[in-house]
Amino acid sequence: MSNIKSLFRKKAISTNTDNISLDTASKDNDPTNTPANTSANTPIEQTRWNGWGNININKKVSPHGAKLIKSHIGKTKKLNSVSLAQVLKTVPKSRLPAALTKLDTVSIDNEVRLRHARGQSFPDWIAMHGGDFEVFPDGVAFPESTADVETLLKLASEHDLIVIPFGGGTSVAGHINPQKGSRPVLTIAMSKMAQLIDLDVESQIATFGAGTQGPAVEAQLDAHGYRLGHYPQSWELSTLGGWIAARSSGQQSLGYGRIEQMFAGGTLVTPQGVLNIADIPASAAGPDLREMMMGTEGRAGIFTEVKMRVQSQPEEELFKVAFLPNWEAGKEVLRQAVQKNIRLSMLRLSNAVETDAHLHLGTTPSQFMAISTYLKARGLSSDKVMLTYGVSGDKAQNKLALTQFNKLLKQQNSVTGKLTDIMGNIWAHGRFKFPYLRGTLWEKGIMVDTFETATNWNRIDEQMQQMQEAVQNALADEGENVMAFTHISHVYKQGASLYTTYFFRAAKDHTTTLKRWQKIKHAASLSLANGTATISHQHGVGRDHAPYLAAEKGELGIQVTHDMLKSLDPEQRMNPGVLIKN
Amino acid sequence: MSNIKSLFRKKAISTNTDNISLDTASKDNDPTNTPANTSANTPIEQTRWNGWGNININKKVSPHGAKLIKSHIGKTKKLNSVSLAQVLKTVPKSRLPAALTKLDTVSIDNEVRLRHARGQSFPDWIAMHGGDFEVFPDGVAFPESTADVETLLKLASEHDLIVIPFGGGTSVAGHINPQKGSRPVLTIAMSKMAQLIDLDVESQIATFGAGTQGPAVEAQLDAHGYRLGHYPQSWELSTLGGWIAARSSGQQSLGYGRIEQMFAGGTLVTPQGVLNIADIPASAAGPDLREMMMGTEGRAGIFTEVKMRVQSQPEEELFKVAFLPNWEAGKEVLRQAVQKNIRLSMLRLSNAVETDAHLHLGTTPSQFMAISTYLKARGLSSDKVMLTYGVSGDKAQNKLALTQFNKLLKQQNSVTGKLTDIMGNIWAHGRFKFPYLRGTLWEKGIMVDTFETATNWNRIDEQMQQMQEAVQNALADEGENVMAFTHISHVYKQGASLYTTYFFRAAKDHTTTLKRWQKIKHAASLSLANGTATISHQHGVGRDHAPYLAAEKGELGIQVTHDMLKSLDPEQRMNPGVLIKN
Repeated sequence: MSNIKSLFRKKAISTNTDNISLDTASKDNDPTNTPANTSANTPIEQTRWNGWGNININKKVSPHGAKLIKSHIGKTKKLNSVSLAQVLKTVPKSRLPAALTKLDTVSIDNEVRLRHARGQSFPDWIAMHGGDFEVFPDGVAFPESTADVETLLKLASEHDLIVIPFGGGTSVAGHINPQKGSRPVLTIAMSKMAQLIDLDVESQIATFGAGTQGPAVEAQLDAHGYRLGHYPQSWELSTLGGWIAARSSGQQSLGYGRIEQMFAGGTLVTPQGVLNIADIPASAAGPDLREMMMGTEGRAGIFTEVKMRVQSQPEEELFKVAFLPNWEAGKEVLRQAVQKNIRLSMLRLSNAVETDAHLHLGTTPSQFMAISTYLKARGLSSDKVMLTYGVSGDKAQNKLALTQFNKLLKQQNSVTGKLTDIMGNIWAHGRFKFPYLRGTLWEKGIMVDTFETATNWNRIDEQMQQMQEAVQNALADEGENVMAFTHISHVYKQGASLYTTYFFRAAKDHTTTLKRWQKIKHAASLSLANGTATISHQHGVGRDHAPYLAAEKGELGIQVTHDMLKSLDPEQRMNPGVLIKN
Repeated sequence: MSNIKSLFRKKAISTNTDNISLDTASKDNDPTNTPANTSANTPIEQTRWNGWGNININKKVSPHGAKLIKSHIGKTKKLNSVSLAQVLKTVPKSRLPAALTKLDTVSIDNEVRLRHARGQSFPDWIAMHGGDFEVFPDGVAFPESTADVETLLKLASEHDLIVIPFGGGTSVAGHINPQKGSRPVLTIAMSKMAQLIDLDVESQIATFGAGTQGPAVEAQLDAHGYRLGHYPQSWELSTLGGWIAARSSGQQSLGYGRIEQMFAGGTLVTPQGVLNIADIPASAAGPDLREMMMGTEGRAGIFTEVKMRVQSQPEEELFKVAFLPNWEAGKEVLRQAVQKNIRLSMLRLSNAVETDAHLHLGTTPSQFMAISTYLKARGLSSDKVMLTYGVSGDKAQNKLALTQFNKLLKQQNSVTGKLTDIMGNIWAHGRFKFPYLRGTLWEKGIMVDTFETATNWNRIDEQMQQMQEAVQNALADEGENVMAFTHISHVYKQGASLYTTYFFRAAKDHTTTLKRWQKIKHAASLSLANGTATISHQHGVGRDHAPYLAAEKGELGIQVTHDMLKSLDPEQRMNPGVLIKN
């Protein structure tokens, strides 16, 4: 029970997938085939300075998968990439005053500053590969306690610094990028506050340092038989504080809840002092401070210690796949399952284009042919959609949930069986490796990015169509095709999230490639700016989504949020420009 | 399916209780024995001007129940009550300007003003019976649309009025009381905005006028086969807007969620304009406007149209009772049930004193003896506690929940059977009539009030002890005994709510009786002001709890809440003094 491998323990996953070569992932060159198996954070020097994840982990893409993408977007050419040494030469002298540089907790080392300058957004990748970082933080602090953070914010006030909180550096929306300006920038990296501090097993509340990354959260809890159950795609590197500050949602949110349901309270250090958010189960005493501070994206302060609602490790955890005749059938199953309170831990539905792409990307041509033939023989056409689902918890509850869910699947003529069960296990086994695909495709000149939203059930189809058409047509003026597909990744009684992945060709250089992305991003964001879909269901706002936020919140909603933040940060030194304008 | 009686339809409640005379409630003199069966709000003239509820409904108290209370607090004497005519003579001339009095939506009728001057707090009852109302609103507006409310707030700004939003007038914490001051007071009563406006059955979102009372919400939804499922004790008269503005929680919150989980979005008219809160299923786009505005208690604006998450009527609904050997055993059952995700709709646990009192209040002496003898024969002593539980939903899910819950009950040597099942039905049948008891006891000179909180499981016992001791000793200086007992009314994985009821004797007059209450209230509130228990789990803050709020939120938490409210109401005309100081 002492390490993260127990997440995939045999008793939980009944089919041993080690000898099944259905997925090219099992041939990838990482030794563990899981992102991490340690109760400590991944040291930053073990991560890629200019891309995603652990330097020892890669994910291959099948040749006929890449061929499928190119059949949509055309022949591609790899972009050049600069070396770390080249970028290091561009780091300017730190402007931090001596009062900070003399602190043990502060580093002005060039590589440290470089490694905390960018996240994982597409513009960040362009900067990291093209070598034009534009701005670096003037220094990076590594506090070890709430008191350290208080000291740093006091010094920031005395010396008029900009402060950027840094969790796992996994933002895909420009949350942690320093900006040009006269005020020196201090990035506060929370990586040394990564321990389980207290575990109240009666109330099932675990207190953690806010800088704890996903695997270290679960490994430290698992040592006591507990689980948080928050698995965003960025889980390998992202942190509790980042999840809370950006309102993250994990793959099993249907069963375990979003981060909003998990965050019980904790300590937020603000420029106006420490805000202690009491961990009370529920309250009618005014607006909820937890909900006021979640999603502040570093604008209000820095979470240092956080109290999380945890639960016992599940007795059983299963992931399965089903294929359905078409999108409408799949959507109906999802909606009914959630509205009938069927206790699944996850539901995910790929549309037909994504289903086809996934089958290509995860197989050899002969495997693909075998699966296609099998599904065709079972009556499914090219309209078929893939549904991934899971249960996690008490065995009797799981059994009832699967019985009730299978009934819904049957009503919609779905295909399930040993093969689809294996596919479910493969998905579970490789689910944190998808972000590694971006680098693999980048090397082939295939640019990939995603965007996501949530809307009500009665608007899901229309919204998906608008999103896909927007990105597909975004480069029409230069005669470029964009490939796009979508899945529902999170379901609610009221509606669901939509997650669109798109591919386009690298242009002749980094700058023109970035311009292509900007056109697509703008078109995608406008397709969401209709007042009924959120600009982000799980990635947050950052700088990239901020211009579109008013369509969702209204001008008055923006104003009240602004004034609330300014109350805690009157000099607007905390991550200015993120979330909303100053 | 067309009226509220279907809540208690035979298919849902298997044991017909009509012929069982176990509870004196069945002999009470109301014709329906349910608070309401109409899709319209209760007209205010059908309610008591100086007490709780419908003028046609009473609830008797058994003589040996009253005797039990008196055995704790001593012999009592009834307080005098003034007549409506007497109070009407004290209503001063309205100070509203002509710009308002000329509106069709505004009334300055003295009885209308009187009936909107007070809520249901203990000080309100003293004022209503003693006749000293202190302040009346200068007029009451009855808007019929969001546009009407916008007009009223604009006029309020032009003429510098104080505005008090009024839902069902059921506040027990001083939410709707006008205060002395130079600015005229306009109370805006939402009773004419009480219709179901739209029902999106695919997304299960119902749009209502915010002034819709509980029975009218459910009757209008039930006509379409849907249910909200929010049943606070005040359900008969309280409104959607009030629930949202004061963060209400209903009896079946375990199954249906608190109001926070039901409120999807809607329209809040503020002095700065209309804030439209989008009804998006979930979002990572910054702090949640829903959660920022819920609990604002009229300080930010007035909810006019609200979008609520509803669901299909349950296939089956059952309420049951079990007796357990002692508090510790009962608490263990509750905690395990919720932490094991057993799908019950409610869990409620009376401590031993409350159990004894309930058995007295709801029985004749011979019935009480029969029950006591039976429970004693089954091995239960005077430490025994009563646990009320329910399931509501899908039959197969209910069956599994009851199977798993019964296992927990057995482990703790509980007593269940036909008798306890009947008691569960009786509880369900009479559950909205408990507030009527206050008037019955008042007539006997027995003063009763309640207070409540929530805290984590690891503090439940300590907190309950502190609460009870605080009120029991609050009148020691004048040699008066206070009787107190407590139940857990809502459970969460992290903790539970505690609800304490207390009884004390009326003093020689209204003023000295109020002073007794003030001493008890202060002691009770101090027992909560420890930073780990909320000042209110379900009643809200109002004026009565405001002085104790900082213990929970911290000074910085109060400041940021204050600044957020001021952003929407810079002239602080909306319900000033409620929730937090101006």
